[in-house]
Amino acid sequence: MGDRARRLAELIVRFGANVQAGQIVSLSTEPGKEELTRAVAEAAYRAGARFVDTRYFDPYIKRARALYADPDTLGYVPEWIGQNVLALGEHRGAAISLNGTVEPHLMDGVDPERLGRDMLPRVRETERLVNERTVNWTVGPCPTVGWAELVHPELRGQEALDRLWQDIVHVCRLEEPDPVATWNARMDRLVEVTRRLDALALDALRFSGPGTELTVGLLRSSRWRAARFSTVDGIEHRPNLPTEEVFTSPDPLRTSGTVTSTKPLVVTGVLIEGLRVHFEAGRAVKIEADRGAAALRSLAARDGGAARLGEVALVDAQSRIGQLGRVFFDTLLDENAASHIALGAGFDMAIDGEEDRARLNRSDIHIDFMIGSDEVSVTGITLEGQEVPLLREGAWQFRGGAATLP
Amino acid sequence: MGDRARRLAELIVRFGANVQAGQIVSLSTEPGKEELTRAVAEAAYRAGARFVDTRYFDPYIKRARALYADPDTLGYVPEWIGQNVLALGEHRGAAISLNGTVEPHLMDGVDPERLGRDMLPRVRETERLVNERTVNWTVGPCPTVGWAELVHPELRGQEALDRLWQDIVHVCRLEEPDPVATWNARMDRLVEVTRRLDALALDALRFSGPGTELTVGLLRSSRWRAARFSTVDGIEHRPNLPTEEVFTSPDPLRTSGTVTSTKPLVVTGVLIEGLRVHFEAGRAVKIEADRGAAALRSLAARDGGAARLGEVALVDAQSRIGQLGRVFFDTLLDENAASHIALGAGFDMAIDGEEDRARLNRSDIHIDFMIGSDEVSVTGITLEGQEVPLLREGAWQFRGGAATLP
Repeated sequence: MGDRARRLAELIVRFGANVQAGQIVSLSTEPGKEELTRAVAEAAYRAGARFVDTRYFDPYIKRARALYADPDTLGYVPEWIGQNVLALGEHRGAAISLNGTVEPHLMDGVDPERLGRDMLPRVRETERLVNERTVNWTVGPCPTVGWAELVHPELRGQEALDRLWQDIVHVCRLEEPDPVATWNARMDRLVEVTRRLDALALDALRFSGPGTELTVGLLRSSRWRAARFSTVDGIEHRPNLPTEEVFTSPDPLRTSGTVTSTKPLVVTGVLIEGLRVHFEAGRAVKIEADRGAAALRSLAARDGGAARLGEVALVDAQSRIGQLGRVFFDTLLDENAASHIALGAGFDMAIDGEEDRARLNRSDIHIDFMIGSDEVSVTGITLEGQEVPLLREGAWQFRGGAATLP
Repeated sequence: MGDRARRLAELIVRFGANVQAGQIVSLSTEPGKEELTRAVAEAAYRAGARFVDTRYFDPYIKRARALYADPDTLGYVPEWIGQNVLALGEHRGAAISLNGTVEPHLMDGVDPERLGRDMLPRVRETERLVNERTVNWTVGPCPTVGWAELVHPELRGQEALDRLWQDIVHVCRLEEPDPVATWNARMDRLVEVTRRLDALALDALRFSGPGTELTVGLLRSSRWRAARFSTVDGIEHRPNLPTEEVFTSPDPLRTSGTVTSTKPLVVTGVLIEGLRVHFEAGRAVKIEADRGAAALRSLAARDGGAARLGEVALVDAQSRIGQLGRVFFDTLLDENAASHIALGAGFDMAIDGEEDRARLNRSDIHIDFMIGSDEVSVTGITLEGQEVPLLREGAWQFRGGAATLP
């Protein structure tokens, strides 16, 4: 097992999920990620895990389903898959997912509408688990050759893989003498940003830039969060590694205008490029793209909340991922390069108050797409209608303290 | 995908499990078996499966557990793993397992006693499912390079793999013009053998040969079976591919004497060679081997039935596997080369009558080991004490009809 895999596994297990002695650990991965998967499982057992329940999801079999199964059955999921997720919460377990595509062109030529009916490996119970805060969880990146050749098309095979590993080591701060200390400093700053944003008591955000003029209305009790969570039992964990964002859940009824995505995204294996979405009264009424729009349209039609926003997130230009200037074709990384919004489920933890919690968007889906760049300005609008510059050319604009912010 | 994988997958799905339109299919496999796994999943979806629930069990992670987990937790299994098995029965699903090791030396140097505490991927609920006959299931072989180099140590890599595929194609009768018709003819003959054995109303079997002098007592209602089963809903399936055996469940209290295994076996990843077991009043009171005895001793101490017999099976010399004269180091194949017995759980379906069913052996384990060869004679002893030769030099000895038997 390689040293880089071992170090990344340690960070994922000890810092990301923060696995506790005696815990059951759910480990979600894919065939083609065996090296890091096994390093993570070993690190979890060394950390005292009671049991590591490893689940290899095979996208080739998802493809066979989309191609050959009765189309009416494509949304079907055996009830035990969701029950297993909930049981992990009852056990107060930990959960680790390894992101990153193994075979980026696998779904080429498969009908995106059929693919969009099958949400797996995502199940709706995952959202409930997140909101109940019963599980300390994290999502980390797993470099693969297929992914590496997508990110670095000028390189092939091992050379591409080594280069992607370099990127991952850098954005995960693994080359630092003390990665955990470096991470703690960065996260302290992100938490400080959330305090400043909360103090502004914003009613809405406005994004302005090329192809984008979008207003996102917030709830009275929308609260800003960074990706440092605690479970109901007080176990601190970092749900994304790496992370560079602050985020909240908006009012699902008050987004309007047009937004153009600033990076491609991959949804259920389908690459979506040049995405343009028009919102009216909170609903995405028009979804267009240069490529792959049908997959997103199919998902946005899934349920009542699937065409409304569940998340808005801000990322400043200090992001190590943003600074690389690379497209990773993977939401975990790309969403931490730039400000973004997500169609679908909102986060209970981003809402402070029972009344507004009932107004939070609910859906089986949660799909982030990137709308920020140095060319997109972000402005806050207070309850009194005052405009407060938040991000200009990627830099925080807080009065009197910008220099101290990340 | 290779043509041989496609043909084997078709046989496994259509003839072995006999997957029905609308069924959920559980598919148990390992990383390193992707090609056949995906061929089986595709064949299942083409056969109308509603959902293929693929479970890749990673033995490297089992190894990490044995090495690093708290020894007191090694027998622990989250309850949902068994519940998932039972849920498949409630759904009247189908189940397919792909046998064959990927990395035969993976467990070398790992404490066999620790390994023996962890039964996974086996769970006790599987036995219940088999006895309830709610699922049409099969176990088929999956050639891998690691397994091929074990079986053909004179060859390496692709050459070894191609040779093992030749063996598998032959013993699965895939080179026949109509494999299913050939299989049906062989299985009709095995069923005819079970009728003749049942007609003898045997009280016991005696195995005599080098290092073996063993008497296995039968129950009054022990009934002989071939591996052609029907579910409670009447779906016919072939639980093992290939299969060459007839079997029943004996009296767990009436086995005595000494038996020497005629082939090596692999249990929880541990190779056991030169196994010698001494039985008194049905119980294995002494387990010795040239290699690996500790793993079997650990399993045989697991519960009250683990040191008693749940199965006795007879295989004649017409077996295609026996004729190859090869050791496959895999129970699915090796048990169909030679007569065998199994420690642990018995089969409800091999017992005719409620009273004796209560006397059937119960255990969480079921471990077959091979005791037959051309040098081992098998004799039946009737209720009246009459001795009836059954197998001599591998040939059935039924009076007046041997020539018509397989």
